[in-house]
Amino acid sequence: MPRITFSPFEKTIDIDGSRNILQLAREAGIPLQSTCGGKKICGKCKVVIKKTDGPLPPSSAREQKVLGGYSEKGYRLACETVLSHGAVIRIPEESRLKPQVILTSDTEHSYPVRLRPNVSPHYVEVSPPVLDSVIADRQRLLIALEKTYGIRRPALDPFVLRKLPHTLRSDREGVTVAIRSKDEIIDLYPGRRDSLFGVAFDVGTTTVVAFLMDLITGDRLSVKSAMNPQIAIGDDVITRIAFCRENTGGLEKLRISIVECLNALIAEAAAEAGIDPDEIVEATVVGNTAMHHLFVGLDPHYLPMAPYPPVLQESQDYKARDLGLNIGASAYVHLLPLKAGFVGSDIIACILATGLHRSKIPTLLIDLGTNGEIVFGNKNRMLCCSTAAGPAFEGGHIRWGMRASSGAIERLKIDQEMLDVRWETIYDQRPSGLCGSGIISAIAEMIRAGIILGRGNFDKGLQTPRLRDGEDGPEFVLVWASEAATKQDIVITQKDVAAMQMAKAAVNAGATLLMEQFEGEEVERILLAGAFGNYVDPEDACTIDLFPGCLTAKVVGVGNAAGHGSCLALLDKNKRKEAERLAQKIEYRELAATTRFKELFVSSMFFTSARDFEDVF
Amino acid sequence: MPRITFSPFEKTIDIDGSRNILQLAREAGIPLQSTCGGKKICGKCKVVIKKTDGPLPPSSAREQKVLGGYSEKGYRLACETVLSHGAVIRIPEESRLKPQVILTSDTEHSYPVRLRPNVSPHYVEVSPPVLDSVIADRQRLLIALEKTYGIRRPALDPFVLRKLPHTLRSDREGVTVAIRSKDEIIDLYPGRRDSLFGVAFDVGTTTVVAFLMDLITGDRLSVKSAMNPQIAIGDDVITRIAFCRENTGGLEKLRISIVECLNALIAEAAAEAGIDPDEIVEATVVGNTAMHHLFVGLDPHYLPMAPYPPVLQESQDYKARDLGLNIGASAYVHLLPLKAGFVGSDIIACILATGLHRSKIPTLLIDLGTNGEIVFGNKNRMLCCSTAAGPAFEGGHIRWGMRASSGAIERLKIDQEMLDVRWETIYDQRPSGLCGSGIISAIAEMIRAGIILGRGNFDKGLQTPRLRDGEDGPEFVLVWASEAATKQDIVITQKDVAAMQMAKAAVNAGATLLMEQFEGEEVERILLAGAFGNYVDPEDACTIDLFPGCLTAKVVGVGNAAGHGSCLALLDKNKRKEAERLAQKIEYRELAATTRFKELFVSSMFFTSARDFEDVF
Repeated sequence: MPRITFSPFEKTIDIDGSRNILQLAREAGIPLQSTCGGKKICGKCKVVIKKTDGPLPPSSAREQKVLGGYSEKGYRLACETVLSHGAVIRIPEESRLKPQVILTSDTEHSYPVRLRPNVSPHYVEVSPPVLDSVIADRQRLLIALEKTYGIRRPALDPFVLRKLPHTLRSDREGVTVAIRSKDEIIDLYPGRRDSLFGVAFDVGTTTVVAFLMDLITGDRLSVKSAMNPQIAIGDDVITRIAFCRENTGGLEKLRISIVECLNALIAEAAAEAGIDPDEIVEATVVGNTAMHHLFVGLDPHYLPMAPYPPVLQESQDYKARDLGLNIGASAYVHLLPLKAGFVGSDIIACILATGLHRSKIPTLLIDLGTNGEIVFGNKNRMLCCSTAAGPAFEGGHIRWGMRASSGAIERLKIDQEMLDVRWETIYDQRPSGLCGSGIISAIAEMIRAGIILGRGNFDKGLQTPRLRDGEDGPEFVLVWASEAATKQDIVITQKDVAAMQMAKAAVNAGATLLMEQFEGEEVERILLAGAFGNYVDPEDACTIDLFPGCLTAKVVGVGNAAGHGSCLALLDKNKRKEAERLAQKIEYRELAATTRFKELFVSSMFFTSARDFEDVF
Repeated sequence: MPRITFSPFEKTIDIDGSRNILQLAREAGIPLQSTCGGKKICGKCKVVIKKTDGPLPPSSAREQKVLGGYSEKGYRLACETVLSHGAVIRIPEESRLKPQVILTSDTEHSYPVRLRPNVSPHYVEVSPPVLDSVIADRQRLLIALEKTYGIRRPALDPFVLRKLPHTLRSDREGVTVAIRSKDEIIDLYPGRRDSLFGVAFDVGTTTVVAFLMDLITGDRLSVKSAMNPQIAIGDDVITRIAFCRENTGGLEKLRISIVECLNALIAEAAAEAGIDPDEIVEATVVGNTAMHHLFVGLDPHYLPMAPYPPVLQESQDYKARDLGLNIGASAYVHLLPLKAGFVGSDIIACILATGLHRSKIPTLLIDLGTNGEIVFGNKNRMLCCSTAAGPAFEGGHIRWGMRASSGAIERLKIDQEMLDVRWETIYDQRPSGLCGSGIISAIAEMIRAGIILGRGNFDKGLQTPRLRDGEDGPEFVLVWASEAATKQDIVITQKDVAAMQMAKAAVNAGATLLMEQFEGEEVERILLAGAFGNYVDPEDACTIDLFPGCLTAKVVGVGNAAGHGSCLALLDKNKRKEAERLAQKIEYRELAATTRFKELFVSSMFFTSARDFEDVF
């Protein structure tokens, strides 16, 4: 059987001529980029055919267009190429998935923690067995718990019972019992013990963060993060859901991949803190609805189909072992509530973390991760919606867009006279593309410099070699090939601007629609959650009209608010009830159901701060 | 590395000179008999060394004594022989564990069944999702259940939730929901469904029986039985507990072996009934306390140590998946309550099945499986105890004792004049030994023929070649070598009679002690539970004074009452409460704690119906 070897990973896979190189790379676990998930849109999955045992199929017209002169150097698009002969295929540097800058920290805008953990230690001394009446080990422990603490008949599952006989007979005096909600024993320890550990997760479409916490002191013992390994299947939620629909066992494959990722983070965090993962007595998880469903193993098949119903909404408590999480054998995992198919527990956690639901200040909360979710309101009333912003904010569908990894331009300045460009890149590497904040910075600067006009078109009258005609129409050169890591000019094309106009119009229209429902309430505060919100310059965001209210409101990044909300729910059981209540209270608006959204979307396409704004109307 | 091949099983195992042949055979899963579990007592583990790559170690004195002339034919005792060279070892016919006759049926003495299953089907029609308010699949199902049946918010675990989206959207109208105790959904089926299945287990030390039942009709769809595979570790409970204590991972090994056995029975029974094991929505399990603990994975370490405390006593409901049972993913297994370290849920189930706890008739219930448990009482008051009867009733420690398998003598007659012997064997094969009922029949007949006197000694004055001196003192030949499958004389030795005297004295003394507590209450009914009780001749049992009350009471075998009790609890949830109440009500007497038991034991050693009874005192 012919085989393909992926270089430099030295992984080999059998081929039968039925799958393209992208599919083979995924199967072999090769970190090959593909923003569109194999839909033949993004052009990011470039590979180089180094050796082949037979003739190659001819390049498609799209491949030739995307690859230009590179196709002569052996470059191909993995999603377009099906090989029937053995070959050696190199994944070039620029096509590899790289570790992303992941936001793990919260900010001063986070809600403070009060320590009321759901699992707490209880020390008891248990009477020894006597001969004249048979009292089982379990019964003796329960008698001691009732006598000492008034706790009546908590449950013990088989995994705790298995520890019982030896723990009762250790050479230390007494037993410490980890009790959950006064109704179940989660673990047993010989002698006295004061520390109990928990782990809070934020499961994003792109990144996953684990916070290992001491439930008694509230100390953060370790924070570990990783890329969501489901990225190998597709960057966005829709691609992954399609994968479940189209592949037998696809759901289980995605479920296992995220569970393994969480387990790897648990192991890393526990090792760093010097504890055993088995000592973790509880976990909390937040994530968008699709990530939640994939983690639990619930089929997300119907999420992208109107009326977008999730399988469930309420918060859930499951045995961690039932979901495959490697923490204490009897520990529970608490999943915060979901609101809708595209408003998940990550948004509920953001509200919890920022205290929006307890504040009088009318606040707009925007989370632009892979999806765009928006909340507006205050303690009296809250509305939320989800906008199909598309992947532009994460560099998708943008010619030189890339993830926020090493070499990505995150911010730039354009000299308004000379139109020279200066940039800042992640880790100060030579630029190889633009991450989300870089794209917004570029477009905002191009607006300020008069390069981009109100409708989004380029001012072709400008005299500069940077403005030229390219394959997709006019384009502006930000970085010349000689300065770039890629040895190609890095440009913003007319098409890129159009993609960003669509994306920002979706967000702006969604936010405006929510705000319209609160007559007389002006937004006073705009909170930007997530990595994007933390790195984007609020002024840039206002220049491109990403959201309404820029003139009056204070705009602040609130960091990984979802992760902080997960920690709050881990450390304070009252926050779980609060989350459940706020999830019920918040009103969801389905944008697809309104014509008003379409009107707002169209009128939000323009750049109102552009110099020629007057011309637009 | 040198290797041993076991013939005729064609299994091979590496050796390092550290383990004896019995240990190696167990590890390789060879069905080699060993009643004593390797303690060098029983002499049942005879093997033949066929080929060897080096010199053999010399036979021990015990081997020479046990094997006699056979040692010259290459016979060895597996437990005594450690090889350091490769070899081919044959397991001779007589040393192989054979399928045992297992009692699966109940009798007319069983309590009738009323159908009140704990899981029942509910058909509902669920409203489709609508666009203007997000109602999750789970919520829509719960609304329909509340509206149709008034059932409020039953739980759904992740395994049921995983089936939910597709089941709600099948092409059949409505959904059938299997609901347990009105508080949890166990399974979902598209359309209407009326049948639900359950499985009841009786887990004995020697045998395991599974009853696959239709929960709606009460029909018994299939009954399957197997030897308890833990027999490979040791025939009796104490040997297995010692194995857990002495071997790291020993408990887990025994747990897995019984779980695999139950799963194999489930698969067989389901295949016979034409259903999928996944369709089984509930299981019940009864067994003695050690079997219960090993099945749940609870360390039985402290069971054989005074004051013999079990890890727990109450009935338990666990998710079947947590115990590794392959039935419905969300199904529960109900474990009936235990009373004491040596009075398990099998006895509680026997009481349930015979209705002893609801009857006015003073009844003695005796279960002589591997252990001897005794109950005396009626609906007003019940007492129970456990006697260390030893393995004699199952053929252990008896020279020609064997399991109730093909070729075992189960009953015999001795001509009182000529002292000729006629016998009945299982499956009418040539005799190869005596099973429990055969041993009792032999001793009873020998008493009636005057061969055995009141003290248990042989009447040496009898003129017959059958009575002779053997290795262990006097012995009586039941079967001559020419008539036996073994080509050796089958005898009852003086030592065998002594072993049976100890065993029957333990049972008689235990029963007498319980009866003494009920002044004025005469036993009217003696119920013999289990295989032994079903096959032993009540008259033989009375002749050897196995229990008191023979003269006044009616003696009946009640079949596999434990198994029937397990079925009752499966089909009628009220029987579970009844079992829990009766387990609390029944009073346990620890015989080890009383001097009265010792007195009774000594005075029960004799045979009161022997012709020379007058001589004894």
